[in-house]
Amino acid sequence: MNDQFKVKRSPELASYDLQTAFKILDESLIGHVAFCMDQVPYNIPMIYARKEDNLIFHSSIKSRFHKVLSSGIPVCFTTTLLDGIVLARSPFHSSMNYRSVMVFGNAMEIDSDREKMEASQLITEKMVRGRWQDCRQPDRDELKVTGFLKIHIDNFSVKSRSGDPVEPSKDVNEKYWSGVIPLNLTRGQPVTSRLDSEKIDVPEYLRE
Amino acid sequence: MNDQFKVKRSPELASYDLQTAFKILDESLIGHVAFCMDQVPYNIPMIYARKEDNLIFHSSIKSRFHKVLSSGIPVCFTTTLLDGIVLARSPFHSSMNYRSVMVFGNAMEIDSDREKMEASQLITEKMVRGRWQDCRQPDRDELKVTGFLKIHIDNFSVKSRSGDPVEPSKDVNEKYWSGVIPLNLTRGQPVTSRLDSEKIDVPEYLRE
Repeated sequence: MNDQFKVKRSPELASYDLQTAFKILDESLIGHVAFCMDQVPYNIPMIYARKEDNLIFHSSIKSRFHKVLSSGIPVCFTTTLLDGIVLARSPFHSSMNYRSVMVFGNAMEIDSDREKMEASQLITEKMVRGRWQDCRQPDRDELKVTGFLKIHIDNFSVKSRSGDPVEPSKDVNEKYWSGVIPLNLTRGQPVTSRLDSEKIDVPEYLRE
Repeated sequence: MNDQFKVKRSPELASYDLQTAFKILDESLIGHVAFCMDQVPYNIPMIYARKEDNLIFHSSIKSRFHKVLSSGIPVCFTTTLLDGIVLARSPFHSSMNYRSVMVFGNAMEIDSDREKMEASQLITEKMVRGRWQDCRQPDRDELKVTGFLKIHIDNFSVKSRSGDPVEPSKDVNEKYWSGVIPLNLTRGQPVTSRLDSEKIDVPEYLRE
């Protein structure tokens, strides 16, 4: 772990534990991928998956994302789960509860059809567990035009906050409510496509 | 609007309408702020607010975030609201429903106490509408150690997707379910701080 990539602000909220990072990465659906071109940063929201200690991305091989990242330039991937709005009696001590992972690395292209197929499976299963066995899996032409990239999770940090507001004792007697408003990304009931004229039942793995 | 900052991939999903951008920016709670140092990108999750056509951020004046951004280097801010998982019969045509805004710009420091106080109010009201009038507002010392930055929303793009999966006719006869699983960031019931020994009632503006 390179010192350059360690958490600078509020280091007491940081962790460098790989299993903690994996848990957040597996729960979160999208991340934001930053890269630089001519000193200008770009920051792209992307779905991703994890294979062991690698992040996996897919996009069109024609996309700027794929072309730029596969050249091997430095990338910073960050994903953040929001868990709550933390209201102290003062704005100064108010905060957010969150769990975030930041990964610094360089993307490598995934070449072989076998690995591409596996990457497609991982991304599909990340969206909905159980889906891969119940879909029309990618054909040769589709695999050909899809670019898959991986980034090794090596230089990474976890930063998180949980629990009550932390307030100075002088504030605790102020007559304002303090506490946390929980936040949750929830999945609603599946909405069947209008093209689904055959009235296929919503499969079991989507009903949880 | 500089061509350099226009949406490259799937331009049919892009918009450059300021009011559309404002609506997404006002709904989303956090964004990710990317910047480059020595060709290495950094990508920091941040709460923000909007004042007319400016994004507003706050952090400790001692933070790297504040020091680096106030130097005026290029920044790319992106926020993304997830609206759904779009399951086509094939992974290849599966997607996400989302609304995102990307802003390219340079941060400027907010100097005057009056503007800093207003920025603090905007960020507080973004977290919970109605809170500013029911909190212990910042004192002189707190304003002094808080750095406020603004970024003009000028070079920006909106990218969004909504609705059913789009599938080729050859797939529509495949016997797999297709449709959308809605996603929503929901606020739960407020949890009173354990320090709130005076048992102050949860205020009205938190009960919606």
